[in-house]
Amino acid sequence: MKFGRIAWQGAIHEVTPGSDAKVRLADGREIAEGQFTWLPPVEVGTVFALGLNYADHAKELAFKAPETPLVFLKGPNAITGHKAFSRRPADATYMHYECELAVVIGKTGYRIAKEDAMDHVAGYSVANDYAIRDYLENYYRPNLRVKNRDACTPLGPWLVTRDEIADPMKLALSTRVNGKTTQQGTTADMIFDIPTLIAYLSSFMTLNPGDVILTGTPEGLADVKAGDVVETEIEGVGCLINTIVDDQTWSATA
Amino acid sequence: MKFGRIAWQGAIHEVTPGSDAKVRLADGREIAEGQFTWLPPVEVGTVFALGLNYADHAKELAFKAPETPLVFLKGPNAITGHKAFSRRPADATYMHYECELAVVIGKTGYRIAKEDAMDHVAGYSVANDYAIRDYLENYYRPNLRVKNRDACTPLGPWLVTRDEIADPMKLALSTRVNGKTTQQGTTADMIFDIPTLIAYLSSFMTLNPGDVILTGTPEGLADVKAGDVVETEIEGVGCLINTIVDDQTWSATA
Repeated sequence: MKFGRIAWQGAIHEVTPGSDAKVRLADGREIAEGQFTWLPPVEVGTVFALGLNYADHAKELAFKAPETPLVFLKGPNAITGHKAFSRRPADATYMHYECELAVVIGKTGYRIAKEDAMDHVAGYSVANDYAIRDYLENYYRPNLRVKNRDACTPLGPWLVTRDEIADPMKLALSTRVNGKTTQQGTTADMIFDIPTLIAYLSSFMTLNPGDVILTGTPEGLADVKAGDVVETEIEGVGCLINTIVDDQTWSATA
Repeated sequence: MKFGRIAWQGAIHEVTPGSDAKVRLADGREIAEGQFTWLPPVEVGTVFALGLNYADHAKELAFKAPETPLVFLKGPNAITGHKAFSRRPADATYMHYECELAVVIGKTGYRIAKEDAMDHVAGYSVANDYAIRDYLENYYRPNLRVKNRDACTPLGPWLVTRDEIADPMKLALSTRVNGKTTQQGTTADMIFDIPTLIAYLSSFMTLNPGDVILTGTPEGLADVKAGDVVETEIEGVGCLINTIVDDQTWSATA
């Protein structure tokens, strides 16, 4: 099953895919794209992001692969939905996308064994975890100016339930900027796989439904500019579309 | 004014100080300590924590004082209320308290000028931002095993409105462990003061009502053990009490 969340006519609705690219409400009505606003497919709790979790990306940045997961938190301000705007601030010289498999927790757990970890997964979504590279003085736990701007992490469009993905560790990831492919990889290249991440995080804190783990990105990052349309896609999970805007457009549409 | 939040008889209530150490509901009824559970005084949004924001503490840890604010985020799992338990995990060898002035944002803002910053402050509270020092390989942005355990950051008991504190940059801070004073300092020793922190954070992201800035701690940290009662107090703001428990007591009371 696929589930999304939209804002439409003054309320938040859970939706499923409808016919002809529409979305379907619980009562069966279908709404066309452009008539509603996509929200992240789950109301997120704690959002974890992995640094350097693909060996090729670590190499691309000239870093040694980490020995334990490098995890930082995203604030609620950072998360936005499918087809939203993300802002490239005027004072940034390098802003890159990051296509990432998002793992959504569905069941509370503490000290979850690796072999039980997948039972705690509700499903998957696609994230694009933008970075303002200018301020990146520490790749291991990037600071908030790099990774916690408003609406810098689109998530969506769908939550795809776990049963739909036969093997989440064998999914193709790709990013297209204005239709041109710039990033390609596979979740098979993750350094720390999903069960390892769940076991690690829950070894010292409780994981709850709605918590989301952004599992890192492979190599192939590039600078994006205002006006660029960025599509991050993961095989079987979905294609998340985002448009980069400048400060003026951002302010005019806020 | 002072405001608190409690859970009592199946609901969350906003309270003010009553007579004889009771708390007062909006309808005037007063409830005695022990009859309710303290919650953090605000429903928190983004919680920021400062690393090394007191020069003496940076020196204590043999670090050079930072040139820009060192900020990391706390997850919602970390926050707990007055008189709650915090856990010392069996595998930790060093767990220290940190008495910190908590600044609660009351008005939304982006790119707030330093001279307007105090207009965005709703008030103040007391935080105790415990750290499991074992995992501290990077003081500047400590990892989640150090700083994001469940219930590792008590906050409360009261939100004291801004008008009650004549000068938040001249407040005495102190910590007592089992009644013995172990930490003493003053907010005057902050490297980055409150207006600077608000201007800095809002220079790249929006601050919203309910966001909380934990402004760092002065020198005087010490290891605490299960059974210790830790009181962190800030002049005019309040005294936050917390008890350290071991894994068994934690599990038995969860």
